[in-house]
Amino acid sequence: MSELHSSAKTILKSYTDRYVKLSEEESEALWNALTYRKIARKEYLLEPGQTCKSQYFILEGCFRTYYIDQKGNEQIMHFAIEHWWMTDYDSLNNQQPSEMFIQALEPAVILQIDLDALNNLFDQYPKIDRLFRIIAEKTFIAAQRRLQHMLSLRREEMLDTFQAGSFSFSDRVPQYMIASYLGFTPEFLSMIRAKKRNEKK
Amino acid sequence: MSELHSSAKTILKSYTDRYVKLSEEESEALWNALTYRKIARKEYLLEPGQTCKSQYFILEGCFRTYYIDQKGNEQIMHFAIEHWWMTDYDSLNNQQPSEMFIQALEPAVILQIDLDALNNLFDQYPKIDRLFRIIAEKTFIAAQRRLQHMLSLRREEMLDTFQAGSFSFSDRVPQYMIASYLGFTPEFLSMIRAKKRNEKK
Repeated sequence: MSELHSSAKTILKSYTDRYVKLSEEESEALWNALTYRKIARKEYLLEPGQTCKSQYFILEGCFRTYYIDQKGNEQIMHFAIEHWWMTDYDSLNNQQPSEMFIQALEPAVILQIDLDALNNLFDQYPKIDRLFRIIAEKTFIAAQRRLQHMLSLRREEMLDTFQAGSFSFSDRVPQYMIASYLGFTPEFLSMIRAKKRNEKK
Repeated sequence: MSELHSSAKTILKSYTDRYVKLSEEESEALWNALTYRKIARKEYLLEPGQTCKSQYFILEGCFRTYYIDQKGNEQIMHFAIEHWWMTDYDSLNNQQPSEMFIQALEPAVILQIDLDALNNLFDQYPKIDRLFRIIAEKTFIAAQRRLQHMLSLRREEMLDTFQAGSFSFSDRVPQYMIASYLGFTPEFLSMIRAKKRNEKK
């Protein structure tokens, strides 16, 4: 058993402790419902057309959720790193085909819980239902902040914010993905960089 | 008692029935924790600097959530209409001052539940905790779709989507708010309209 595998339970416990007080039994039940999985770099957890069946807790690694728009461009919705939950709620909750890719950007390790197992836990342990309410609310808050960024900042400012490390994953993902996340083309990113280089001269 | 007041309980019941099966006691407890309020047009439920204390269920009317960005521009985050819950989760959950205005765009009627009352209900009735998990997940899904729109569509296309009625509130809010919601200035909106008029000639 790897070092990470043996500490995974402790990591999960210290995560849940921040939001709900689970009993020993509840913690065990949650742990037992989870599958420990290693994911290769570039591997997909979800692809368009598939119906999302799980929620994922990241123990190690960095993921992106993106889709291909009508013009064939990749559009990045989110990045996710250690100790975040991720899923496609729209596909999962409505059990309809997803439009999203969820892809590992690094070799990763996750804990996976399937919808049926999760619903069983919710029925047996209301505290776990509460935990996932709080996770959904936190996920919403993060999405809000992203939206607020997009609405408020000029593109150059977004890039500054990004590079200033407001996003904890900014040094872990390729620049062209940052460009997509910020809603602009790689060409636009190059233009800004060139401009910045000229300003420094 | 107004007609709406007497039917409010039925409206709420048929809303909750879509997501959880509440017992008579649970439904009563939820109903009793809610305050029925009439809100004047342009009245604020929340203003920047205030800490959000409640969640709101709209029985009648249309609201917007917006903030003033660093350049002094109004930026609209959401619209909300009948049978939607709204709040500022960031301010409510973290009990920190909000950056948001929540304002009625029409004379409105709402049911309001305060955080303490809600937490008491969660402790007593896990089904109500579950209901608000589902509400948070739905709210997140709506925010995702908005983000996807913003990322994918050129501005003119967003306007077409909006005017084609993809947004059920598009004929209820002033054009300049639509412009803000779509992330562009009133001047840009006028320009597009002029262009469309010329195309029709």
